[in-house]
Order: sequence, then C-alpha cells, then structure tokens
Amino acid sequence: MPLKGNLIIGQSGGPTVVINQSLVGVILEACKHTEIKNIYGMRNGVAGLLKEHIVDLKKESKKHLEIIAHTPSSALGSCRHKPSEEECVKIFEICKKHNIRYFFYIGGNDSAETSHIINTIAKRENYEFRVFHLPKTIDNDLLMNDHTPGFGSAAKYVASYFMGDNLDNLALPGIKINIVMGRHAGFLTAAAALGRQDESDGPHLVYVPELPVSLDDMTEAIARVYEKQGRALVSVSEGIKNIDGKVMLESKISEQDAHGNIQLSGSGALGDFLSEEIKNRLNTKLNKKLRVRADTLGYGQRHFPGVYSVTDAKEAREVGKWAVKYAVKGDIDGSITLNRKKKGYTIEYGLTELKNVAKVTREMPREFMNTEGNFITKKFIDYAKPIMGPLPLVGKLKYHLIKK
Amino acid sequence: MPLKGNLIIGQSGGPTVVINQSLVGVILEACKHTEIKNIYGMRNGVAGLLKEHIVDLKKESKKHLEIIAHTPSSALGSCRHKPSEEECVKIFEICKKHNIRYFFYIGGNDSAETSHIINTIAKRENYEFRVFHLPKTIDNDLLMNDHTPGFGSAAKYVASYFMGDNLDNLALPGIKINIVMGRHAGFLTAAAALGRQDESDGPHLVYVPELPVSLDDMTEAIARVYEKQGRALVSVSEGIKNIDGKVMLESKISEQDAHGNIQLSGSGALGDFLSEEIKNRLNTKLNKKLRVRADTLGYGQRHFPGVYSVTDAKEAREVGKWAVKYAVKGDIDGSITLNRKKKGYTIEYGLTELKNVAKVTREMPREFMNTEGNFITKKFIDYAKPIMGPLPLVGKLKYHLIKK
Repeated sequence: MPLKGNLIIGQSGGPTVVINQSLVGVILEACKHTEIKNIYGMRNGVAGLLKEHIVDLKKESKKHLEIIAHTPSSALGSCRHKPSEEECVKIFEICKKHNIRYFFYIGGNDSAETSHIINTIAKRENYEFRVFHLPKTIDNDLLMNDHTPGFGSAAKYVASYFMGDNLDNLALPGIKINIVMGRHAGFLTAAAALGRQDESDGPHLVYVPELPVSLDDMTEAIARVYEKQGRALVSVSEGIKNIDGKVMLESKISEQDAHGNIQLSGSGALGDFLSEEIKNRLNTKLNKKLRVRADTLGYGQRHFPGVYSVTDAKEAREVGKWAVKYAVKGDIDGSITLNRKKKGYTIEYGLTELKNVAKVTREMPREFMNTEGNFITKKFIDYAKPIMGPLPLVGKLKYHLIKK
Repeated sequence: MPLKGNLIIGQSGGPTVVINQSLVGVILEACKHTEIKNIYGMRNGVAGLLKEHIVDLKKESKKHLEIIAHTPSSALGSCRHKPSEEECVKIFEICKKHNIRYFFYIGGNDSAETSHIINTIAKRENYEFRVFHLPKTIDNDLLMNDHTPGFGSAAKYVASYFMGDNLDNLALPGIKINIVMGRHAGFLTAAAALGRQDESDGPHLVYVPELPVSLDDMTEAIARVYEKQGRALVSVSEGIKNIDGKVMLESKISEQDAHGNIQLSGSGALGDFLSEEIKNRLNTKLNKKLRVRADTLGYGQRHFPGVYSVTDAKEAREVGKWAVKYAVKGDIDGSITLNRKKKGYTIEYGLTELKNVAKVTREMPREFMNTEGNFITKKFIDYAKPIMGPLPLVGKLKYHLIKK
C-alpha cells in the first residue's frame, strides 16, 4: 500500500556546483507521485529543521527550479551540524508533527550517519518512514560508489585551473605549487593532471594525502622536473602528509609552537610554507635563485558558477529522481549509489544501507598513482575523464625557429 | 611610399586570457599587406629577442591560429625583462639584421616604455621603423585608455568567483575575505561586486589600493554588515594600504621583523593576516566566536581557460588589427588606445604617443567608489558591465515558510 504523507529534503555540508540538481530532481519527480502530498525543504539542513525552519517547495515555479538546478551552492542553505541522539529524537518528533513520511538528505558521510540515526529512531517507534541519503561531495570519498555527484564539476574546475597555470608557467617559467582541496582523499588533487596535452605539460608532480612524502623527496622530484623542463608545476593536496604520518602543516605548526613564535593558520598557510621550504632546499641543491610561487585554490573549487561537468550535472539530477523512485516503491530506505557497468560508461543508480556509507570514507585506490607515488596513472585518467567531460580547447604555437 | 620589410611581435609581462587574440589579430591582418614580408615572433619578449630566439609565424595554419586566439597566456612566451639602454641598442641591431621594419609589443606600461626607447634609438639612427605598443593588462591601469584588453575577462572570472562565494556564504554563513589582484589599481577588486543581484548579496564591502583604510574601520564596517546580514563577504585588493600609506602587509612584515621572528611571504600571507586580525577584533567587539576565512584568488584571474568576456576577446583582436592598419599607413608609431564614444558602448581604436602610456599608470577614478570608500558606485557598474559582458544565470529559492 502506498505510504501517503509529506516529503522533506535538506542539504548538508560543503556545497557543490551540482547539489541543486539533486534537489530539483527530487522535487520534480516527487510532483509525479500522488502519495507525496507536500514537498518541504529544510532551511540549513537539520540545524534549521530543529528550529522548524521549513519551506514549501511546491510554490516554486518549474521554470525557476531549472535556474536553481544550474545555480551552485546549496539553495536551501546548509549546515555542518551533526545532531545528538536527543536532537535526532526532536527531529523525528517534528517530522511526525508535519506528517512527513519521506525524509531526504543530500550530503557526505556525516549526512548519511545523521539519516541513519533518525531512521533507527523511526523504526523503534514503529513509524513508517522512508529515509534516503543522496550522495554529494567534491572529495569523491564516499564508500559503495564509483564516484559521487559534485566531484566531476570540481575536477573540471581544478583541471582547467591547472591548464591555465601550465600555460602561464610556460610563458613565465618558474616553480609553481598549487594546493588543492581534499583533506583525506586525493581524487581532486589528481584531477589537476587531466588537462595535460603532452609529457611536457604540468602538473608534473601530484602529491595526495594517501601517500606521505618527505620535503627532501619532494625537492628531489621537483629538481628532476626542473632540470628537464626548466620549470615545474606541482599539484599538492591540502591534506598532504609528512612521512611521520602527520598532516604536513600540523608538523610545522607544532614545530613552531615549540618555539613559541607563530601560529600558522588560514587558507594560504600550507602553500606559503611549502613554497618557502622548497625554495630554500631547491636553491641550495641547484645553487640558483629560483622563483617559487604557490596558489591555494579556494572555495571556487566547490562553487564556481558556469564551470561544470555536463555528466556530473545529469547524474546529480538522476540521483534525485532515483531517490524518489525507490522511496515510493515500498518500505525501504538507504543511500543512493552510482556505479558504472563493466563496459563503457553507463551508470547504475543503486541503493545501499545507510550505515554502509556513514562514518568511514574511502581513499583513492593505490593503482591510480604511480610506483613513486608522485603522479597519476592511465587508470586514473580512464576513471576520471568521463566523469569530468571535455575541457576547453587550447593550443601551442609550433615555434618554427628562424636562423640567427 | 610603403615601407617594405619584416614584422616582429612579442608579448610581455603577466599573461591574460585574451592576449593571444591581439597576437592573432596582428598576424592575420599583416598577412593582408604585401609590404609586410615575413611575420616573426619573439620567444619570451625582448629577453628572447636579445638571444635572437625568433620564430616564423607565417608557418602556423589559420585554423590553428584560431585555437591559439582562444588559448590563455602568452603563446610566444613572456618576460618581465626591462632592457637597459645598451640592450635596446642590441635589440635594434638584431632588428636591422633581420630587416625588421615593423615592431609590435603587447604589454603594460613597462612594455610601452621599452618600445619607446627602441623607437628613439631607431629615429636617432635614421632607420625607418614602425614601433607599436598594444595594450594588455588585467589591472586596467594604462593611461589614455577607457579600459585595456584583458581586464574584461579577468573581471568576469572575479565576478563569477564572488557570485559563487556569495551563494556559498549564504548557505554556510560566516565572514569571508577574498584577496584580489591589482597592486595599484582597484578595478579588478571592484569588479567582484558586478554579479550581485540584490542588496543582500556579497561582496558587501570593497577595499581598493587607492583608498587607505585602518583595520579598525574595516572591522567596524564588517560588524555593521554582519549585524544586518548575519554574514559578510569582503573584496580586498592585494595592494590595500594602511592609513599610514604603506601596503598593509608591508606594515605587518616590518612589525614582525622588529621582533625578529617570521618573514611573511607568498601568496596567502595577506589573506591569512587579515582573517586573523579581523577575527580577533570582531570577536572582541561582538563578543562572539565568528568563523572568518580568507581566499587569495590566484593566477586563475589571469589565465582561467574557457571563462572570458566575448567583448574583451573581440576588442583584443581589434587592437591587433588596428596596430597593423596604422603601421602600414605611414611613418607613424605609438600605442593603440581604446576609448568609448559618449553614447552607448562603441569603441574607437586610436593612437597615442608611446611616451604617453609609458612609466606612469592610472588609478581608478574616485567617483567609482562611494563616499565611505568601501563600496562601488553605479558609475562603476555602468562603466565595467559592458566590458565584462553577461555572467552565468543563478537564482535563489523564494523560501515560502510553512507554519510551525
């Protein structure tokens, strides 16, 4: 028997460029099913729901929803709040009060965890409740998925940035280090290399959090690139680890704290630290005065409007649709998964238990990085390119030298 | 009588997204004029020319040149070399040796200065030589011009970034400070506000190098925005000055040096410094624990592929064409200027003496900023929007609240 009642949807965690595709996918699909009466939105995720900040999404026009779908960042507002057991009970009571029977939460593994707890309470109370988690993260670190919506578009932004930076670095050669988001998983840092056209193009080196590295080894590798190319472009994850296993900046901070001098903090700290350290080591090693610069790619990675993967946008929309399709099927709940069929690139939208996606995150497979642990492999390119889609077309002059 | 001989073109200084449009504009127009025999390119500007690193540009196919035109960064390579008087003599000798009669140099005011010196030597030596400077700078700081190629596209990147950041900050409210390029002129920092849809949108404050500010006044202004909006997004120029007239970070560096502790350097230093200072002052003032973050917009401002102003690209191409058209007209030389006719937005491509663009740069007109000196005016919007062209379409939900 169909479960009649209202639907609520919320967005959680850091935004992506396509997170509203999933939101609009849910709204438009839900409109097709008569058992779903009202379609509500939580303002700022469960933090807003706890205050009963609920909006009516059926009052939005379909035309306007299409603009929202193409708008980056969480249109309902987001939160980083992980509710306590007590708060989860309160959330459940609010849902009951508003006759909510369909609960949808778009987010990463923390959001899956929250959904799981709320679902457990509903079961305990014998309240028929369909709880669905919709995957979203630029870090691409959810278990049970080939990849997650948000990653493809962030990958396109990062790969584009490095394409431009490679051309910039070619015109004005030097050592350039760019810090990329992804505290625990290296997918986005690795995506930096997806725009290379030939062997001479940067990034020439890629450092991910999964593979610790010493500053000495990094300097050695950069020196080798410099000697061959007369320049070097390096992609470094914000979560890069020292060989002691500590996040590199943490090692630096504790070191500095011991001297009681400075507190490194804020977005540019790792880039500034690395460029300074590498410059000193490199210049000593090569006996030169090289120009070493760092950019720390900012929030643009998760919100830059107009730059998105068409595939990613389409998949994010599908995730929304499938969540509703599964929800109206019967007494089931779970997290929507994206997995590709063995051949070609076709995505299957499956379902897994909420607890399978909660808590733990996944790392990048070792085979996506080379033996030395400082560059991507063809396997990574084959994996990531279809998710990201085409990049802008760029070219180089042929440089037909004339005789002196 | 037409001046028969070869043409050489070079690119200098920081690249832009449309600098190759001017290059391709020159090549394609030069192909139409029989008095211009060979079309040469300097590898890495005058630095390469001094080593006779010259390439044959007629060997590039027209189809490939169109790809180059859409490719960011200087396709010929660039340099930051300001040649000495002696080197200018050497450059002139190399030109004579290769029968170069048309000398084109794309760059900022330093490039105009270099062109001016080389031209003076040629005149002294009675060598008929047509020397042209083609304007290019994302900073938009050349004299004699309404605006310069490169600015419109950089403005689009910065405005887009802030549009995304505004939506991000709306979803996860906090205090966000973004550092924008432009050491002496505030045009690009001001462009951050061109994507706002209504009064509540950020950036809420804009700080340009032309108008010094104290950290206390900045804190006051941010606190006022925070109390109204529950958040604040601030656009700050990398060249922002303290009321003592010193660049803000310089004040900080000397202060720190006095303690003999640290040397702040690298790209993230100003953003980190400001976010830390503002956080401490703001939290004391409001007795809260606010989240203050900073992004330092990096080289992407001058090279991000695929994001460009169509108007800017067209104008950069025209500058190349016009330079050749002027050059074949008679014994003249100078710097191409862009100025708009009084009504509407039509650009006239004029010519001014090289020395008029050399050495000094221009600042942003005072009327482009409000009385308080912390936000743009309608005059700036009217000035900059047509140069930048349309931005991505984004929208917000209407938030029809339901009763508790």
